[in-house]
Amino acid sequence: MSQNKVAGPEIEQLIKLLAKLPGLGPRSARRAALHLIKKKDQLLVPLAEAMGVAVDRIGVCSTCGTVDTSDPCAICADPRRDQATLVVVEDVADLWALERAAAINARYHVLGGTLSPLDGIGPDDLNITGLVERCRVEAISEVILAINATVEGQTTAHYITDQLTGLDVSITRLAHGVPVGGELDYLDEGTLAQALKARTRF
Amino acid sequence: MSQNKVAGPEIEQLIKLLAKLPGLGPRSARRAALHLIKKKDQLLVPLAEAMGVAVDRIGVCSTCGTVDTSDPCAICADPRRDQATLVVVEDVADLWALERAAAINARYHVLGGTLSPLDGIGPDDLNITGLVERCRVEAISEVILAINATVEGQTTAHYITDQLTGLDVSITRLAHGVPVGGELDYLDEGTLAQALKARTRF
Repeated sequence: MSQNKVAGPEIEQLIKLLAKLPGLGPRSARRAALHLIKKKDQLLVPLAEAMGVAVDRIGVCSTCGTVDTSDPCAICADPRRDQATLVVVEDVADLWALERAAAINARYHVLGGTLSPLDGIGPDDLNITGLVERCRVEAISEVILAINATVEGQTTAHYITDQLTGLDVSITRLAHGVPVGGELDYLDEGTLAQALKARTRF
Repeated sequence: MSQNKVAGPEIEQLIKLLAKLPGLGPRSARRAALHLIKKKDQLLVPLAEAMGVAVDRIGVCSTCGTVDTSDPCAICADPRRDQATLVVVEDVADLWALERAAAINARYHVLGGTLSPLDGIGPDDLNITGLVERCRVEAISEVILAINATVEGQTTAHYITDQLTGLDVSITRLAHGVPVGGELDYLDEGTLAQALKARTRF
């Protein structure tokens, strides 16, 4: 008897697929599968339905690259959004994070990653051409680069800035500084240096 | 805009249900949902199918209480299993753990929990009557209590022993001792005391 085969093939298949979710390993996938089977009516049935709906109806917005049930997505189609500002993010998860913060009422552009020559990810693998095209065609006045403050992210930000040269858009980026609620003691020197440099009047 | 509603209702429903899985919180459920949507063909479609199969075909074995696609389950129906020995476990997860260890080729009896007066769980909430009935009707010679070494588990073990009094079955329990690969320094005094008491010749 192998290490993993203890239940029937249907249950093993469920465990195997659940284990591919981020955050779940083989052990927690077993727990999750058992939980689903035990809570058949309360959880397994509705989750199977929700996944069926997702399979049938969720796709990628051809304008901004986020995922939604409509194309263009609800955000791109929303006339109350500031049409002149685009927030550029690496990933849909970042878009969701900004929407949760509810700090800006603009539209987005999802790159789908960052430039990473080591991983073989070049400009053609990202949705950068689409961004330049939108800046050309739509009346965009500001592009906010809400890209992660990693080496790859900053390389990507510089590349995008180059690509947008000559277009009449102002390019901004998120401020660096101390996270709200953050303790100085736990912050790296780079963040502290940036926070000091960009200090504001109290 | 609320804290959690950033995507459409279909995606939110998927996130909400995923967050109910053990091991996933609201944040990891969002990551999992996004991962599923991005890997639609490789993961979302097969997982939705596997859940559909689970909904349609997986149920509880009316003999031992485990989950399987057949009733009686594959283990109860397996003639190569030792028919005279029953391993009593709290939960299906424990049954799976013992099957992974492949240390015994007997059949099981799943209690579905432990006695816990504080949580309102009494003998009638567990599958104890079923166990007594099996010991009476089937030719059972040994009942191995593979119940967790917690206070509730041990209370349950004592209760079961009382219920089986008068029946011609020998009742055993798992040995206590040092886990294989375990370091003495990290073990509690109770385990060390039991391991010393039950020491064997080298």
